[in-house]
Amino acid sequence: MNGQFITFEGGEGAGKTSILHSLNKKLSDLGFDVLATREPGGIEIAEKIRKIILDPENTEMEKRTEALLFAAARRQHLIQKVLPALKAGKIVLCDRFIDSSLAYQGHAQGLGIDEVFTINQFAIKDCMPDLTLFFDIEPKKGLERISANKDRERNRLDMEKVYFHEQVYDGYQILADRFPDRIHTINADQTIEQVEKAVLNYIISFLQKK
Amino acid sequence: MNGQFITFEGGEGAGKTSILHSLNKKLSDLGFDVLATREPGGIEIAEKIRKIILDPENTEMEKRTEALLFAAARRQHLIQKVLPALKAGKIVLCDRFIDSSLAYQGHAQGLGIDEVFTINQFAIKDCMPDLTLFFDIEPKKGLERISANKDRERNRLDMEKVYFHEQVYDGYQILADRFPDRIHTINADQTIEQVEKAVLNYIISFLQKK
Repeated sequence: MNGQFITFEGGEGAGKTSILHSLNKKLSDLGFDVLATREPGGIEIAEKIRKIILDPENTEMEKRTEALLFAAARRQHLIQKVLPALKAGKIVLCDRFIDSSLAYQGHAQGLGIDEVFTINQFAIKDCMPDLTLFFDIEPKKGLERISANKDRERNRLDMEKVYFHEQVYDGYQILADRFPDRIHTINADQTIEQVEKAVLNYIISFLQKK
Repeated sequence: MNGQFITFEGGEGAGKTSILHSLNKKLSDLGFDVLATREPGGIEIAEKIRKIILDPENTEMEKRTEALLFAAARRQHLIQKVLPALKAGKIVLCDRFIDSSLAYQGHAQGLGIDEVFTINQFAIKDCMPDLTLFFDIEPKKGLERISANKDRERNRLDMEKVYFHEQVYDGYQILADRFPDRIHTINADQTIEQVEKAVLNYIISFLQKK
């Protein structure tokens, strides 16, 4: 069996990160060989790039610079961590990937989905995800979940306004329409146990078809 | 009068950097408003990106990651330094620009000139140089000039082999053929005074046509 590359996407507070980690455990318990990761994923070069992107001091960061840096960090994480795991036959669960750039930079920041897709195609070549789960929740509800969690690290991107997050949400819906074979929408406006169950069922049925 | 964007290109040891600085002085003495720069050009974000690219510790840096980082640093330098100077009507002399990525990453490293052009088009949009001077010297002669200058800083890119520099040279020749209206070839295998004179004459005649 070849590896399977599954990405988790959605706005802030959609619950995808905590569900990814519980899914990792559940799939491992079921005997699957799983790698859970997120960019920059402990890859030193990608960590250094990410540090530049998220540094609140870099207020003069231009949008296109940022999009190119995300693509660069993505490339290095893909090469050093995702591809070796896929070659070893693992199921790779990745918290955010190309669709984050398309929704955030491409649509919400107005650079254009197609233009941002172009630099990301350069970055990932033919390594598109086999399956992408879009965690669908209204931006305001997602942001309320975040503000209730005061331990969460705040960074420059978290400071953007609600309108921006609504644009991100629009972006994800455009992507879900554009890539219906790859992107599956999960109703994330349920209890975490319900979302988790829906995701687990969908992934198991997806893997059984392979 | 609008600004003019003039880039200096060529392999290692072609003399373009020292000639760029003497040209800056000569054009200023003639009354032109000149900005001499090179990426990352003191732009803090671009300096940070460049530091990642050139750090000899980053031996696992993948080629496409590197190309995306060069494009990111280029974008930020363009936005913060080159464009404001052009808008102010200056003549901008820039040591290396898009053609360096096309010759080094695109051709010599084998990523493909067209592919590297794509990410650089994203980075520079419609800000192609008005004029590019290609300093033409056989790679071996250029490298001999460098090894004679022991003060020159050595970095990871300098350590590449002669074969690589021959490929870079081939890349520049392909570019000069592809963009004959923009790229003018300067014979750099002369004394520095002769090269300087040829460049000054060409730039003055170029500016007079504008």
